[in-house]
This record gives sequence, C-alpha cells and structure tokens, in this order.
Amino acid sequence: MINVSIIGSGNVAGHLVSAFAKSDAVQLVEVFSRRNSVDFTLPENASLVHDLDLLQDADLYIIAVTDGAVAQISEALPFKNRLVAHTSGTMPLEILHENNRKAVFYPLQTFSKTKAVNFLDIPICLEAQFPADFQLLERTARAISDKTYAINSAQRKALHVAAVFANNFTNHLYGIADEICREHQMPFEILKPLIAETAAKVMQLSPDEAQTGPAKRNDLKTIAAHEAFLSDYKKDIYHILTESIQNHGKKL
Amino acid sequence: MINVSIIGSGNVAGHLVSAFAKSDAVQLVEVFSRRNSVDFTLPENASLVHDLDLLQDADLYIIAVTDGAVAQISEALPFKNRLVAHTSGTMPLEILHENNRKAVFYPLQTFSKTKAVNFLDIPICLEAQFPADFQLLERTARAISDKTYAINSAQRKALHVAAVFANNFTNHLYGIADEICREHQMPFEILKPLIAETAAKVMQLSPDEAQTGPAKRNDLKTIAAHEAFLSDYKKDIYHILTESIQNHGKKL
Repeated sequence: MINVSIIGSGNVAGHLVSAFAKSDAVQLVEVFSRRNSVDFTLPENASLVHDLDLLQDADLYIIAVTDGAVAQISEALPFKNRLVAHTSGTMPLEILHENNRKAVFYPLQTFSKTKAVNFLDIPICLEAQFPADFQLLERTARAISDKTYAINSAQRKALHVAAVFANNFTNHLYGIADEICREHQMPFEILKPLIAETAAKVMQLSPDEAQTGPAKRNDLKTIAAHEAFLSDYKKDIYHILTESIQNHGKKL
Repeated sequence: MINVSIIGSGNVAGHLVSAFAKSDAVQLVEVFSRRNSVDFTLPENASLVHDLDLLQDADLYIIAVTDGAVAQISEALPFKNRLVAHTSGTMPLEILHENNRKAVFYPLQTFSKTKAVNFLDIPICLEAQFPADFQLLERTARAISDKTYAINSAQRKALHVAAVFANNFTNHLYGIADEICREHQMPFEILKPLIAETAAKVMQLSPDEAQTGPAKRNDLKTIAAHEAFLSDYKKDIYHILTESIQNHGKKL
C-alpha cells in the first residue's frame, strides 16, 4: 500500500482524491487545504489538515495547486528528504525546493468541476530525480490510470503547448462555430455530431490523413466566398488557418 | 415507399447508398455513375446506370457530386418537373436547373472512405421550393437519420463556414499538436484522451463554459513562455487564437 497525501483543494486535487479513493493500491492519508472545507468528498480514512506542520508521514506528497504557488508551497513543507511531486504541465521539476526529493505527477486532461472524468483514460506524465522514486510514482499512477508516460521537463513543456492547441484553441474554434450558428438562427446542436466525429476520426487516422475541407483541396472559390462572408477576427482566423493548411497541411 | 435515385459515385453517394439500403421506408432505384464500377456495394434491387437518359422514374433524385459539377449535371437531366436535390453545403438551391423542382439534401458530416459513420446521428439539412416537396424530403431524411433541420440557403452557407471551423480547422490544430509531440519524441497517443474530452465537454457545456487555458485566465507569463517556445507559423496561430480568446472569449 502506497501512502499518498495531497496538498491543494482545487479541481485537480479533487479529481485525484476521488480517483485514489477508488484504488486499493493507494491509501490517501490526508488532504491539505488552507480553507476550512473542500468542494469534494474525502474518503473515510483520510483527514483534512489546514496546517502544513501537522502533515503526517507519507510515501508521496502531491502538490496540486496553481502553477504560481508550487515553489512557495514546496519550500514551506516542514520535512526533508521525502518524495514531493507537483502536478503542473508548465513548471519544471527544478521549481520544487531542494529540501525534498523532486518529482512530477502531471495528469494531462482538462478538468472542470461540473463534469466527471474517467481517470483510467487520463495519461499521467511522470518524472523523478531518482529511479526508485520513479518506480513508486509509476505504481501510484497505475493505481488510477491505464496510461503512464515518462516525460522529462523539456518534453512536458512542449506537451503543454501541444495541449493548448488540442484543447483550448480547439474549444475556441467550437465557440466561433457556435457564434456563427447563433448569428444565423441555428442551434449549436446541429454541429455536435460533426465535432464528435472530427475528434473520433483522429483516434483511428492521423490528423494529416483525416484532413478535409476547402483549404486541403485548395478550393480557392469556396475559400474566397467564405472570406467574403466573414468579417473581423473570424476572418483573420479563417485566413491564417487556411494558409497554414495550404502551406503545412502536407508536412504535418 | 419513397423511390430515390442517387446521381454520383463519390464518398457522399456511397454513404447515402449504404444508409438507404438499411431503410424500409426508402427504395433505392438506381445509382448513376460515369464509371463502370463504384467503390461501394449496391443493394440487390438497385441498378447502376452510366447514361442519364436511361434514368427511371423516382420520387427524388439526389445529386451527390462535387460542388462544381452540380449545375451541369442538373441541366443534363433528361426529364422535367421531377424533384431534384443536391447535397452541397456551399451551393444555393438556385444552382439547380429550372427544368425540375429544386431541393437540398445536405448531410452535415465529414465523410471518408476509410471510416464508417452512423448515419442516424448525422444532421440532414433540408430545403425545398415547395411545401409538399419539403415533406417528402423530410420523410426521406427521417428514414436514415434522427436529426433533420429546415435550413435555407443563406443559413446553409453560414453553417458550412461554421463547419470549417469545427471540423477542418480543428483537425489542423490536432495536426499542429501532433507535430509538436513528434518534434519532442512523444507519441500523439498521449493527446487522444484530451482531444476526446474536449469534444465531449461541449456536448454538455457551451464552448464558452468549457473554455480553459492560459488565454482564458489571462496568464500572461505562460502565454509569453509558449510564444517564446514556438516559432514560425505555429507561433502566429498561437498568437492570433490567444488574442481572440482574450478579446472575444467572454462574448462567445
């Protein structure tokens, strides 16, 4: 049994707590929160602490706080030479304080409070200073997910940028499509099967193989008609993405 | 029983043929193809014709050819005052020749030869000159799909642009994310659960509610780090989409 404590009370902390609560291989010891209550349910044997000095022994401390608070929290830990991991996609391993053995436990997923996720499908990106720590990290991750990857800090930085394209920017394109629908009295519902199929396609084909549309087939007449139809920032985005597909679509 | 003939032998024609083959409400009479063979299987009672002059009587002729060929094919039809629909997202109803009663039967989906689709989930956008024709069109569409919409030509034009954002451009962002992964020796697999969840989220939440990331939370430090990390066209796209989320993310 691996004893894990979680430091933080946000979205990622909450999802980790509920994932560990379902696992037989991990015992959740405590959750640290500055606040008196948390938005998620703690498993029976785990306690909530408000004072870092009261943290009990654990095999692994997972810091799940906002990126900017990781360094400070890791420095404030009142113990030495224990295994401490952060969950940030953007922070390097080195951001953690020298007092403890450093690691990263980064679940690559978009978490929101209002939507449950199946942790088994979530890739967990792992990094540690020492091989023995990496093994413990991997056993911990395998307790909640089928997908674990050894990803170093340079790779994780790249991965986070890739995730911004695949998640944040993609969602913004959905938002633009939604806006165009609303401007013409059509429900966003009408696009949902297309959105689902677009994502489903790249589960089987590479994005290059899956690419279709006016830019891919260099249909200049349709492109010109679309650009004439659009205005403002939607037109600019249409233009730059069309150009990118035309220039780089084959290379991708 | 509605008698339908399909004119064309491409992707859309093939998917329509296999959808109608499964329906009890529609009888597929014939498929017209310029070529001697087609890439898809014809149902037992349907025949393949190569000469427009040999086309038999049908309640509805669906022209499923490339956008540029719609006008010409509709003009070449050797009969008058029958119901003829095209399947194009970009062409107006009026592109069809005056000889026959005009309609549009536009399935809003991305079709590829290598991936089967479930037609029941595909929205079919319908338009007709006359109410009685619209009713027949709707009965035909309902025979293969649970989702039918009355969409006029102006709306369909907007919808096609929205679909370019939700499908073609989204897929290109997947391609950029794939490229970033490969540049840093990471498999595209690692992003697939995120891509699936990003699409799944907007089935329940609006894109505005689902939006996360550095641009949405105005995390200028991360944005600057990402822009310094990227180069070339990927940097330009990062910049314009970040700016768009910052300026218009709330409005969307």
